[in-house]
Amino acid sequence: MGGDYAPENIIAGALEAARNFNIRPYLVGVSDEIERVLRRHPTRGLDIEIIHAEDVVSMDDHALVALRRKKKSSIRIAADLLKQGDVHGVLSAGHTGAAMATVKVVVGSHDGVERPGLATVLPTLKGLLVIIDVGANIDCKPLHIQQFGIMGHIFAREVLGIEHPRAGLLSIGEEASKGNEQTREAFALLQETPINFSGNLDAKDVYDGDVDVVVCDGFLGNVALKISESLADSLLVIIKEHLSDTFLSRVGMLLSRAAYKKIKKKIDWSEYGGAFLLGIRGICVICHGRSSPNAVKNAIRMAVEFRQHNVNELIQEEILSIQKLKKKNGVGV
Amino acid sequence: MGGDYAPENIIAGALEAARNFNIRPYLVGVSDEIERVLRRHPTRGLDIEIIHAEDVVSMDDHALVALRRKKKSSIRIAADLLKQGDVHGVLSAGHTGAAMATVKVVVGSHDGVERPGLATVLPTLKGLLVIIDVGANIDCKPLHIQQFGIMGHIFAREVLGIEHPRAGLLSIGEEASKGNEQTREAFALLQETPINFSGNLDAKDVYDGDVDVVVCDGFLGNVALKISESLADSLLVIIKEHLSDTFLSRVGMLLSRAAYKKIKKKIDWSEYGGAFLLGIRGICVICHGRSSPNAVKNAIRMAVEFRQHNVNELIQEEILSIQKLKKKNGVGV
Repeated sequence: MGGDYAPENIIAGALEAARNFNIRPYLVGVSDEIERVLRRHPTRGLDIEIIHAEDVVSMDDHALVALRRKKKSSIRIAADLLKQGDVHGVLSAGHTGAAMATVKVVVGSHDGVERPGLATVLPTLKGLLVIIDVGANIDCKPLHIQQFGIMGHIFAREVLGIEHPRAGLLSIGEEASKGNEQTREAFALLQETPINFSGNLDAKDVYDGDVDVVVCDGFLGNVALKISESLADSLLVIIKEHLSDTFLSRVGMLLSRAAYKKIKKKIDWSEYGGAFLLGIRGICVICHGRSSPNAVKNAIRMAVEFRQHNVNELIQEEILSIQKLKKKNGVGV
Repeated sequence: MGGDYAPENIIAGALEAARNFNIRPYLVGVSDEIERVLRRHPTRGLDIEIIHAEDVVSMDDHALVALRRKKKSSIRIAADLLKQGDVHGVLSAGHTGAAMATVKVVVGSHDGVERPGLATVLPTLKGLLVIIDVGANIDCKPLHIQQFGIMGHIFAREVLGIEHPRAGLLSIGEEASKGNEQTREAFALLQETPINFSGNLDAKDVYDGDVDVVVCDGFLGNVALKISESLADSLLVIIKEHLSDTFLSRVGMLLSRAAYKKIKKKIDWSEYGGAFLLGIRGICVICHGRSSPNAVKNAIRMAVEFRQHNVNELIQEEILSIQKLKKKNGVGV
């Protein structure tokens, strides 16, 4: 029920995913509205469950208030289905904070995971990268950042199919000595992990694509993600304005329209599936509020990969094995 | 002597500025090289000083080592000229850390300024904004951020000519409760200042242009600036690639070439003058390493405005007046 085009785009994307990836969508929300939208789509041969939810979390609700008070909200009921094992994953395009808090509390974290982290996928010159944490945690400790690195590594390898993902710590220079107090400590902890850690990643190199996993605290990651979104949106406006300036440039724009559509699609954040909350006992995808049906379908495709590659089992194993290593070496966790 | 195209572009920009803004450039560096470049330019009627400097700070030098050991470097000699009152300002396109550290130590900060902050100008949909600090200070206290707000406000008003600049604290949501520990404290301190503080600025709104002064700690500001630069550079590459895809799009690109040049210029970071180190007893501008002669000229134009509007005197007054206010109210500084 959440997002700018809900429930239309969510349902359309879920139906597309059902057709293509052999999944069984549970549509959780105000059932009248869901049925109204479903009537406009061909659904023959699809196995769809409609689960009624009375409440809707609005964007103005506080995340924790939503969690505690709105026990019949669509996100809460979806989280309950996940907890009970009726579904493998939950997808929402609504209130990010409420969705994360609700799913995290209802299904719980893996053993040893201090803080689940939100990972999202971004386009670079060479392909895609994963950035984690983009906002699940505001004040992070170095240990949390170490765990984000491990979880991001597994996600990039299993879901994006990058064989040996290189991970970098988002910072302001490449040398180990660069960065603030928090990143310098996180740097040392990341070096202790078995992931392919290439050190500090200067922010000026993020979109070059030489690093596959960008690790950072949730405050920095959220600002990095959102300022990128702000810039990309503004550039599209500027490009359009300038290209409508003169007659020649307008003709030029018409001729290159197909190329523009591709550029716009490449830049459009909402097309890149969704953000995955890593470290919890289940799959939770948060889509952009503006998500198109195609973006929702892509997010579900990634969730299917996530499940097929046993990402959660791999995360659980790796986190426990690092902790064992530390105990063996006499370092407290 | 610093920067990717030094001393050529620096000298060319300085000569242009001398012609246009009635300034007298002191060209500090290896004099043979300076004279070699000068021979290629018309300099009749211009009043130019050449000051020889034996050493050059390279990009590999550590900022503090450069400061302590290279006493005959071009940046050190330029800072000495500033200290002695021979010049009003210093401009460098070289090693940012070394330039900031050298000028700060040689000329000193204003009374009451805890940490000078680096302010730079960025284009938005509605004009220009000032963002401070973009990297002078890595681990900042809330008080430093308060002072950045005051200095950025004065810079935007006097140098950019924005009558009532609105200032926002870079964060991850608009409400006062949003942000991390540091930004929540800085929020309260910014509210105590007489500047037009509009609260938290969600990073997704930075380039909309509704805020004229973006205030943040130097680590966050540096990442925000550099990731924007990385994205803009990558987008230009993507746009060019896609527009060369097909015959039609190539023709389209040719027709809209003039518009493209404008877009590229608007996006090109190096065109926006330079970054000003605010809070020191003098003017210090750091230009992008890739600066064109035009960018250098623009930076000098801003430095002239800075001087004509007595920005340093205004900063000194405002910082002292806030401190008096605090003492009066019984709050320790």
